Amino acid sequence: MSQIAAPPLPSGRVVTDPQIAIGYATDQSLGSTAPDNFVVVRARDRDDVVAVLEHAQAHRIPVVPQGARTSLCGASTALEGGIVLNVEALNQVEVSTAERYAVAGPGIVTADLKKAVAAQGLFYPPDPASSPMSTIGGNVATNAGGLCCVKYGVTADYVRGLEVVLAGGEVIRTGRRTAKGVAGLDLTGLFVGSEGQLGVVTEVVVRLVPATDPPLTALATFTSLDDAAKALVALRAERHGPNLLEVLDRSSLVAIQAMEDFGFPQDAEAVLLVQSDRPDHSAEDVQRYAKLLTTAGAEDVAVADDAQEADALMAGRRALAPALELKGPHFIEDVCVPVAQLGNLIRQSRDIGRRTGVEVVLSGHGGDGNLHPCLFFDEQPGSRERAEEAFGQIVDAALDMGGTITGEHGVGSLKRRWLPRELGDAELARQRTIKAMFDPYGIMNPGRPL
Amino acid sequence: MSQIAAPPLPSGRVVTDPQIAIGYATDQSLGSTAPDNFVVVRARDRDDVVAVLEHAQAHRIPVVPQGARTSLCGASTALEGGIVLNVEALNQVEVSTAERYAVAGPGIVTADLKKAVAAQGLFYPPDPASSPMSTIGGNVATNAGGLCCVKYGVTADYVRGLEVVLAGGEVIRTGRRTAKGVAGLDLTGLFVGSEGQLGVVTEVVVRLVPATDPPLTALATFTSLDDAAKALVALRAERHGPNLLEVLDRSSLVAIQAMEDFGFPQDAEAVLLVQSDRPDHSAEDVQRYAKLLTTAGAEDVAVADDAQEADALMAGRRALAPALELKGPHFIEDVCVPVAQLGNLIRQSRDIGRRTGVEVVLSGHGGDGNLHPCLFFDEQPGSRERAEEAFGQIVDAALDMGGTITGEHGVGSLKRRWLPRELGDAELARQRTIKAMFDPYGIMNPGRPL
Repeated sequence: MSQIAAPPLPSGRVVTDPQIAIGYATDQSLGSTAPDNFVVVRARDRDDVVAVLEHAQAHRIPVVPQGARTSLCGASTALEGGIVLNVEALNQVEVSTAERYAVAGPGIVTADLKKAVAAQGLFYPPDPASSPMSTIGGNVATNAGGLCCVKYGVTADYVRGLEVVLAGGEVIRTGRRTAKGVAGLDLTGLFVGSEGQLGVVTEVVVRLVPATDPPLTALATFTSLDDAAKALVALRAERHGPNLLEVLDRSSLVAIQAMEDFGFPQDAEAVLLVQSDRPDHSAEDVQRYAKLLTTAGAEDVAVADDAQEADALMAGRRALAPALELKGPHFIEDVCVPVAQLGNLIRQSRDIGRRTGVEVVLSGHGGDGNLHPCLFFDEQPGSRERAEEAFGQIVDAALDMGGTITGEHGVGSLKRRWLPRELGDAELARQRTIKAMFDPYGIMNPGRPL
Repeated sequence: MSQIAAPPLPSGRVVTDPQIAIGYATDQSLGSTAPDNFVVVRARDRDDVVAVLEHAQAHRIPVVPQGARTSLCGASTALEGGIVLNVEALNQVEVSTAERYAVAGPGIVTADLKKAVAAQGLFYPPDPASSPMSTIGGNVATNAGGLCCVKYGVTADYVRGLEVVLAGGEVIRTGRRTAKGVAGLDLTGLFVGSEGQLGVVTEVVVRLVPATDPPLTALATFTSLDDAAKALVALRAERHGPNLLEVLDRSSLVAIQAMEDFGFPQDAEAVLLVQSDRPDHSAEDVQRYAKLLTTAGAEDVAVADDAQEADALMAGRRALAPALELKGPHFIEDVCVPVAQLGNLIRQSRDIGRRTGVEVVLSGHGGDGNLHPCLFFDEQPGSRERAEEAFGQIVDAALDMGGTITGEHGVGSLKRRWLPRELGDAELARQRTIKAMFDPYGIMNPGRPL
């Protein structure tokens, strides 16, 4: 780790203990491993970020901006010969009730931001499943989504402005702090979802909305996937639509029940979980959803009358991640298609699983058309490659339906092979030119994915 | 008009009648006049736009993209030696209820888009005052706002993706059609608010929300501006906040009453207009607003119990534009400050009026901190210059409060002198570099403002 010229920083910023440094070298993506040679900087303020990016550009050292390392696509693992620039310590937050925004450091954990805002009677909606661990900086980098996007949209819908340090150390501010503003080009949207490739975000201004009611929940079991898909589209058309609309396929239910009995019938083809958080009307809404689900062909519909029951119904959904973990080695993927195509995507994904002999478990944010296929492999030679090949076929199917290779996880290093198909060569070249404008020496998280 | 090389287009696209052409040469901005030498093209489809932009780049001819010419800042008037590229005929619209979006041509009038969407039980919220005339393409070009932004946000908050023809004729698609998506950089936000300087938008994908209830209205009269400003901030903090929160100062009331009696007291310092459109709760909301307004010190509060009465209360607000028109020559401006600063901005703007002897009428979208100062002048030598100088002082005051030189009208040619102060030289240079990336020969609406 000593082969990289150390950035000129006050003491305590560069991690000198290799055991600690190694902890910052990997993220949650499959096969994430530490390179031989890297330096970890834990920035404490913007000045540290500026110093690192000045130094890194001068010495052409690649920089990996990093928060809580929850990336599933390899966007935040250390690069050989590079600096890992961790900004978790930039975790301040200031809430303005009058202006209805929060100004947050990139390192604040999303759940903590939501709490700080809730304490003022306000709501920051985006809720990636990682929100108890992931940071707002990482959420901005991936334009994170989550469970309540079906009603509230994604991170980009809430980012009003940014402070960003560019390669070389220049500090810029994008967007606005006022409710409206159209002086000059708004660069904010370029940075949201840019996966640390254009600069390091050091401040995020997010707009806030009024607090909602605690959600109530309905859970519907379907013996026909087609019926579940139809119910999903019908729910989307509701005037007072759900704030959550999750889908679990049969193999998800089997995996969950294998871990713990949540009462899911193992012969069901799909379960839909639906919530309403509409102030003063959540109970009425879920009753209406329940009727709609029954009419659509649900075999059984359970409705939670209070927050505690609602939580019990959601517990099965939350158990999915550990249940998949128990089943064995796998990767959790992320594709998104038009909502009306979701049933089709689930069906084709199953067929692909059958055809390739790869076990595919399907669940996701149904209301957004956002599916998280989970593909399993084992220690047999070629098993993982077969799983990756099967996922490639799912990606092709999603793209053929007008979908995207990633709804909310980002492209990172693991999915870059599919980016040219989605964007086309001309667009990819344009995006590389834009990256070069902000980062002429290509030091910002190179290859993830541009 | 014959000195400009004519683009290779099917017949009927280039306007050959000079009387008709002249009608496309100016917009609604103050002092807008036709240049001597220009060509008008009325595109019928994307191919026409491609042909014009190929031709224009090859011959280095400036192009002014144009919809309904409602610009108040000179963004859409013809340029000497240039092509006016009108896209009003690209006015198709397709609504998807399942995906909750509309795909619209840039030429569709915003009110028509809203109607098409409403027919499907959905709502496209942005509502610039110009919406009965202005087009969605123009709304995208200026990131248009309007009256209901206090609840629903601005045009940018609804644009999910664009099709754009670049200088030279390349057709690109930005953003996404799916509910989520983060593959590559999202260029959409760069184009929204770019005032026709990066390319010509030929398709807009806007996300839609469920229909609201018809709004009900409360109207409050204040003898103290400070009280009105405080009430405004308190209303913003409401959990079930208003969808409209307009402010009119005393001179606005006098101007309106001079035209027609809407029952406004002429000795009031300010009027606040507040609406709720919350389904099933609008009556309850406006009653609560009325109480809040009274507590805040309103002298009088009128509440509309039904849509017809609500409309009557709003009629005075709508009469403002013709009333100002009657008063004499003026320009309507557009600054935006943090909401908590609005009272301060109104006070300082009045002082500036008094000090400079310029009549300043103040009104605007109070809930957004978005003020539309209207400055009057006459035929006396130096009168208009004095009004412009007074407005310059208002701009300075707004910027000092952390505001912007334009909330929703754009910069165009008329406000570019203030852009360097808001953006700074480094940012301006960066934005020019971005423009040059999309438009290397600088043919796209040059000088408005980049």
